[in-house]
Amino acid sequence: MAKSILILNGPNLNLLGSRQPEVYGTTTLDDIHQSCKKRAAEYGMEVDFRQSNTEGELVDWLHEAKDSHQGVIINAGAYTHTSIALMDAIASIELPVIEVHLSNIHAREEFRQNSYIARVALGQICGFGAIGYEMAIEALASHLQ
Amino acid sequence: MAKSILILNGPNLNLLGSRQPEVYGTTTLDDIHQSCKKRAAEYGMEVDFRQSNTEGELVDWLHEAKDSHQGVIINAGAYTHTSIALMDAIASIELPVIEVHLSNIHAREEFRQNSYIARVALGQICGFGAIGYEMAIEALASHLQ
Amino acid sequence: MAKSILILNGPNLNLLGSRQPEVYGTTTLDDIHQSCKKRAAEYGMEVDFRQSNTEGELVDWLHEAKDSHQGVIINAGAYTHTSIALMDAIASIELPVIEVHLSNIHAREEFRQNSYIARVALGQICGFGAIGYEMAIEALASHLQ
Amino acid sequence: MAKSILILNGPNLNLLGSRQPEVYGTTTLDDIHQSCKKRAAEYGMEVDFRQSNTEGELVDWLHEAKDSHQGVIINAGAYTHTSIALMDAIASIELPVIEVHLSNIHAREEFRQNSYIARVALGQICGFGAIGYEMAIEALASHLQ
Amino acid sequence: MAKSILILNGPNLNLLGSRQPEVYGTTTLDDIHQSCKKRAAEYGMEVDFRQSNTEGELVDWLHEAKDSHQGVIINAGAYTHTSIALMDAIASIELPVIEVHLSNIHAREEFRQNSYIARVALGQICGFGAIGYEMAIEALASHLQ
Amino acid sequence: MAKSILILNGPNLNLLGSRQPEVYGTTTLDDIHQSCKKRAAEYGMEVDFRQSNTEGELVDWLHEAKDSHQGVIINAGAYTHTSIALMDAIASIELPVIEVHLSNIHAREEFRQNSYIARVALGQICGFGAIGYEMAIEALASHLQ
Amino acid sequence: MAKSILILNGPNLNLLGSRQPEVYGTTTLDDIHQSCKKRAAEYGMEVDFRQSNTEGELVDWLHEAKDSHQGVIINAGAYTHTSIALMDAIASIELPVIEVHLSNIHAREEFRQNSYIARVALGQICGFGAIGYEMAIEALASHLQ
Amino acid sequence: MAKSILILNGPNLNLLGSRQPEVYGTTTLDDIHQSCKKRAAEYGMEVDFRQSNTEGELVDWLHEAKDSHQGVIINAGAYTHTSIALMDAIASIELPVIEVHLSNIHAREEFRQNSYIARVALGQICGFGAIGYEMAIEALASHLQ
Amino acid sequence: MAKSILILNGPNLNLLGSRQPEVYGTTTLDDIHQSCKKRAAEYGMEVDFRQSNTEGELVDWLHEAKDSHQGVIINAGAYTHTSIALMDAIASIELPVIEVHLSNIHAREEFRQNSYIARVALGQICGFGAIGYEMAIEALASHLQ
Amino acid sequence: MAKSILILNGPNLNLLGSRQPEVYGTTTLDDIHQSCKKRAAEYGMEVDFRQSNTEGELVDWLHEAKDSHQGVIINAGAYTHTSIALMDAIASIELPVIEVHLSNIHAREEFRQNSYIARVALGQICGFGAIGYEMAIEALASHLQ
Amino acid sequence: MAKSILILNGPNLNLLGSRQPEVYGTTTLDDIHQSCKKRAAEYGMEVDFRQSNTEGELVDWLHEAKDSHQGVIINAGAYTHTSIALMDAIASIELPVIEVHLSNIHAREEFRQNSYIARVALGQICGFGAIGYEMAIEALASHLQ
Amino acid sequence: MAKSILILNGPNLNLLGSRQPEVYGTTTLDDIHQSCKKRAAEYGMEVDFRQSNTEGELVDWLHEAKDSHQGVIINAGAYTHTSIALMDAIASIELPVIEVHLSNIHAREEFRQNSYIARVALGQICGFGAIGYEMAIEALASHLQ
Repeated sequence: MAKSILILNGPNLNLLGSRQPEVYGTTTLDDIHQSCKKRAAEYGMEVDFRQSNTEGELVDWLHEAKDSHQGVIINAGAYTHTSIALMDAIASIELPVIEVHLSNIHAREEFRQNSYIARVALGQICGFGAIGYEMAIEALASHLQ
Repeated sequence: MAKSILILNGPNLNLLGSRQPEVYGTTTLDDIHQSCKKRAAEYGMEVDFRQSNTEGELVDWLHEAKDSHQGVIINAGAYTHTSIALMDAIASIELPVIEVHLSNIHAREEFRQNSYIARVALGQICGFGAIGYEMAIEALASHLQ
Repeated sequence: MAKSILILNGPNLNLLGSRQPEVYGTTTLDDIHQSCKKRAAEYGMEVDFRQSNTEGELVDWLHEAKDSHQGVIINAGAYTHTSIALMDAIASIELPVIEVHLSNIHAREEFRQNSYIARVALGQICGFGAIGYEMAIEALASHLQ
Repeated sequence: MAKSILILNGPNLNLLGSRQPEVYGTTTLDDIHQSCKKRAAEYGMEVDFRQSNTEGELVDWLHEAKDSHQGVIINAGAYTHTSIALMDAIASIELPVIEVHLSNIHAREEFRQNSYIARVALGQICGFGAIGYEMAIEALASHLQ
Repeated sequence: MAKSILILNGPNLNLLGSRQPEVYGTTTLDDIHQSCKKRAAEYGMEVDFRQSNTEGELVDWLHEAKDSHQGVIINAGAYTHTSIALMDAIASIELPVIEVHLSNIHAREEFRQNSYIARVALGQICGFGAIGYEMAIEALASHLQ
Repeated sequence: MAKSILILNGPNLNLLGSRQPEVYGTTTLDDIHQSCKKRAAEYGMEVDFRQSNTEGELVDWLHEAKDSHQGVIINAGAYTHTSIALMDAIASIELPVIEVHLSNIHAREEFRQNSYIARVALGQICGFGAIGYEMAIEALASHLQ
Repeated sequence: MAKSILILNGPNLNLLGSRQPEVYGTTTLDDIHQSCKKRAAEYGMEVDFRQSNTEGELVDWLHEAKDSHQGVIINAGAYTHTSIALMDAIASIELPVIEVHLSNIHAREEFRQNSYIARVALGQICGFGAIGYEMAIEALASHLQ
Repeated sequence: MAKSILILNGPNLNLLGSRQPEVYGTTTLDDIHQSCKKRAAEYGMEVDFRQSNTEGELVDWLHEAKDSHQGVIINAGAYTHTSIALMDAIASIELPVIEVHLSNIHAREEFRQNSYIARVALGQICGFGAIGYEMAIEALASHLQ
Repeated sequence: MAKSILILNGPNLNLLGSRQPEVYGTTTLDDIHQSCKKRAAEYGMEVDFRQSNTEGELVDWLHEAKDSHQGVIINAGAYTHTSIALMDAIASIELPVIEVHLSNIHAREEFRQNSYIARVALGQICGFGAIGYEMAIEALASHLQ
Repeated sequence: MAKSILILNGPNLNLLGSRQPEVYGTTTLDDIHQSCKKRAAEYGMEVDFRQSNTEGELVDWLHEAKDSHQGVIINAGAYTHTSIALMDAIASIELPVIEVHLSNIHAREEFRQNSYIARVALGQICGFGAIGYEMAIEALASHLQ
Repeated sequence: MAKSILILNGPNLNLLGSRQPEVYGTTTLDDIHQSCKKRAAEYGMEVDFRQSNTEGELVDWLHEAKDSHQGVIINAGAYTHTSIALMDAIASIELPVIEVHLSNIHAREEFRQNSYIARVALGQICGFGAIGYEMAIEALASHLQ
Repeated sequence: MAKSILILNGPNLNLLGSRQPEVYGTTTLDDIHQSCKKRAAEYGMEVDFRQSNTEGELVDWLHEAKDSHQGVIINAGAYTHTSIALMDAIASIELPVIEVHLSNIHAREEFRQNSYIARVALGQICGFGAIGYEMAIEALASHLQ
């Protein structure tokens, strides 16, 4: 049976592509979904791609992943820096989780330097835009072998 | 067509007037809604007045504002001090946003001194109770001319 | 009429017992619900036992408690350390609130040392696992006399 | 007899309009004086409008206000962030004092985040340029009723 | 043979009941001793109840406990926040130790937020006055089974 | 020839006695002047007693003291906590300087804990109200022998 | 009956005069005792003068003072900066307590800047050597009238 | 002509594979060199792969890259956290630079959380071991198109 | 017409030469004035040399410079470290401003490490005594060409 | 006459060898006493070896050392990190004092990084277990020559 | 014999003029060398002008200076902020050392505010570009007379 | 075969004895080499004694030690406080490493309090001058048995 990975997107990522294209480019979240699907297929994996602006819903989805997916890729957006709840959820589900950010968070405001996700994730990829998701799929595929 | 402004109220503001009247007075959130409606009308503007205790729902509503409103007034309550997600949402929608607080947050506990909203808002009004909302409407009307 | 107490459980507590039993033991949240019901009955009290991963829903439930319960026991999980909204909700409802944690949060990571709940709660019990909830019921019963 | 309010302006505000108009606009301090006079008149109030670059002179003027004015609006400029003497003066005179800033100080350098004035003022208005003074007059009029 | 527990009380607790009754109530330390004795008896346990204002004497008593008691309840008072020596003593004796405070230390001055005891104790109970000792006995009894 | 001491009073001390008598008592600065004169006379000393709200004027007066006085008593009020200029002036004049405060500054807000004056003063007396000035005179007299 | 005051001296003060005379002078603690006795007599007061190197013993003596003395003067030496226990003891006994230091602690190492004693004392006198004790007696006499 | 990328490895990376294999695995730096060569070839790129324990030599090599390479991948090891010189060198050469770490530095000691490299790099990849270098090559290839 | 530069001297600099010659040497402020006049003449420039102990007067003088001078050299003394008002004045006048200090402020107390002036000045010269003023004149002459 | 050195041991060191042997080994404090005696004899010195859990008693013993010993070796245990009283005692007695720790305190919890003892001791030896005492004897013997 | 001064340049300064000319101008390090030679000649001094990217080599060169030069001018670039080794080297050689920076480091990132060099240098010149080196030569010549 | 130990000396230690003899004494690094050789011989060990001012060279030498020596003694000088690279090198080579400092670094500037070496070393010896090296040899010999 094909492996399935959950790709979670946090607050404001639904605006991608339609807002401030001069900053974030014209790639939409759906474009990313499609390229992820394609890249995952190369590794024989399926993707379950979701977005929510609510911290609690992201926690709920992480809980669901335990029994239905083999790994998680998460771009938690602003919750990356403030959510101990997401960190605890990741620690609880005992799946490999990879953290992705479109921008290089380490070159931005100081309050974006802390990542609660990173403390429990396998690793972090940031600064490469949409292609970062594909790189995460490769890393996850490699890890799941 | 009349301009429309979104007025958002964050956590615990639904309790206004019915709880601790000795501290917060007897003005209810609905009273504020009515006085806002009246003041906005003076500037030929309509108000869309909402309250939620959920951070993600406030983010959702800010996203909606982009295509249906010309400006936003937000009293984010406790999320003012903790929500980078709200800050990012405000930055994303590219509308003028004014921050209001009933109490003077700068004269309270230290953890209420930081406002993520203020970093991306047009300006801040605090300490004047319900009339602060009306002042914000004036400031927004002035800005939108 | 029997007194009723609200017992609130925050993010990730729904996983209790079914995840990482080597760390958190095999007691489930439902087991705790049952033992609370039994202990409360000894004091002639009923319990309303809930869990949510969403900060806003916990705030909503605290608001409801004002008119339907005589006291609250809360294990706010990760929101303990980050939620000023929950703190404000507790301060608003003017009910006795007792804070419980399964683990000894003071012996864990530094970011778990701060409790916004504790600033407005009657007291705190932590480190005793499921029995902490029963102890909280005793303390609340004693307080309500 | 008409109520009288003192409007104090701190260091560098005398330069307003004639310096860096691309940043601060072309409105001069005298323009603000005139619009304040007009707005105050609507509430049956007179304004006493002053500016000084010297901390001690601002303290002196606050002392005078006690017996000759019913309220104070203060834009203390840079002294906002460094002057405990002004804070103590405000606390001593027991008049309602409203803090105004032309720019949004919360979105500027970190050393401008602290306001000693705000700890003892009724409230704060910032980020709205010259119209902020008028809003302060409304707030003060409302408070004095 | 009956299990025996050591209950240690730190500096200033000898004044309990006879000083500032409006703050700390009229319960004396001896009252607490009696109620502890009674509650412990319910679990078939004896209590050895002591108080000292000297850090070194509390360390000495903890050392003694190793060979004569099965568990310790400690209200170290002010030494809670400053004594690494007590922390090391607790770590050395390898007995279950429960920390109790009459007041909710987390809602007091910032220098009372740190507890060296908590880093090595089984758990902490605070804010419930004298009944907190009884709760500690229950927790200890439960732990020792 | 009689020794002469300069007694300097900083910002807001001119209000003493006529403002907030419930906090600061009804003793005026002139009352203090009189009692200082009397106490100084016991030691065969004259006093030169001044007050200013302007930091620079206090610096000027300290400079003058070098050639006309044998010692200085200073209650720099709010400038105590912010004025490196006063500290440097005191260091420059090479006279014995004693720091006085009416209230116990160490039991007030954290920003009142720092005293630039204290780093270069002979000693500090605080918390004793007007009598603190008299004690300073005794200390200065003793030092000048 | 004559009023009696307790004068407490903390760690290392027993060495006064016999050690490092080039730093601390040749005045011994007994010399201070004598001059205190003399000065107190002027106000019709008796002194009970003690020294201990043990924190707990100083706490014990403070407790005793409640019923046998009308006020306390304390030079807690190094415990000034580290002892919350002494602070709590002072708060508990509800007597006027005056803090004295031989040297100007505010001009020494940073860890000597904090005084737990000062938070609950009437006031503080430091930097005047032995005469500071006499000044404290005057302040206490004045306060007790 | 084939594009050429410089891959720099900082202090202690020469030990890879031969030291602490239970921690870092048995992959040697040469193994990484080979897999990089292979992956780069897929994108028609050549790699220049170097290692040095000396900060200044790494700076020298970055300078050389300007005229001979189209991009840089750098695992600066411990210098990541301490070298402003490397950061300045990267900023000076105006080439795209990607930061790689074998381990997840965000889950390690606090002094490893700061990366001077990240402030000027395109992005960062960490936590994926040797495959992280290959991902960096993909990101660089994608960026250079 | 000859270029004119304003040379401002802040608090306590008037004492130069006549006080603590063993520390600051015997050069007086007037000596510096003369050597500045001479050096400026070499570049065909005139100097306007002033000193004040009052922050507000220094701000006033900076404002005047805009229309009458081509550049400013400022030794703000202690106000360097505390005056945001001076920093704002410098930013407002849009003239080249050079900061000078007689002593090496970076090798002194920590509170002298911060310079608000330096954030908006062209550059800083410190540690060279009176000759630093002459160097500043050279730098200003070079900048004004 | 043989030189005599005082070897002081602080809190919890009396438990050495009989507690947690897997951590601290089976060497008892008496074993260390014996090996110290032997090593000291090689240098013609006698040892006075003591242990106390009370800070004040350690201070007392240091005072005694002045007239009866030529040097001190101290393992102050937990008091190392909290006792300014011990630091002051060491500074007062003007004897060479060497600090010893069984474990490497610099590789333990952050609150063990500070040593008040080290600020006034000749030097520090830590991390070598019981042999560290012998090394201290050698260092002291060398210093006393 | 002519006096000789060593002028040291730290990391990345070799790139001057050929990189980012829009930021750093087109002046090369060799241009600076030539203008230094010329200016030094005016004072009858020779210059030994060097650059290295390696901290240790800069330390080596400072050591050499002791016996062959009369003074040092150092622009340590990024090592200014991180190298205690350079600071120790400067302190060891007991020559007058002047610190130069092309840019105004006090107006840049916070991590560039600290200068280990400044703690032991005669003085600092920054923000004047290449002419700063010439000013340093004047200051050094003046110092060496 | 004789055991061999590597003794590494960091920046500026080559100057020992020939520079500032009033501070560091007249013992040269070669003198220390000789006394180390002699002491090591007593334990049947040989010493390989080196010094470098370059961090990277010290890292290189630590790597070499793995296969040729049984233990390391390191006085890393200024790099002690700044080099994570040296710390990582020590951790990598899995040899016992002892840290030595001539002076008592804990009694010096605050930036010398942190030792990255100490986190991974067996133990630390500081403050005893040259004899500290010999003590380290004894400790290493004892550890290697």
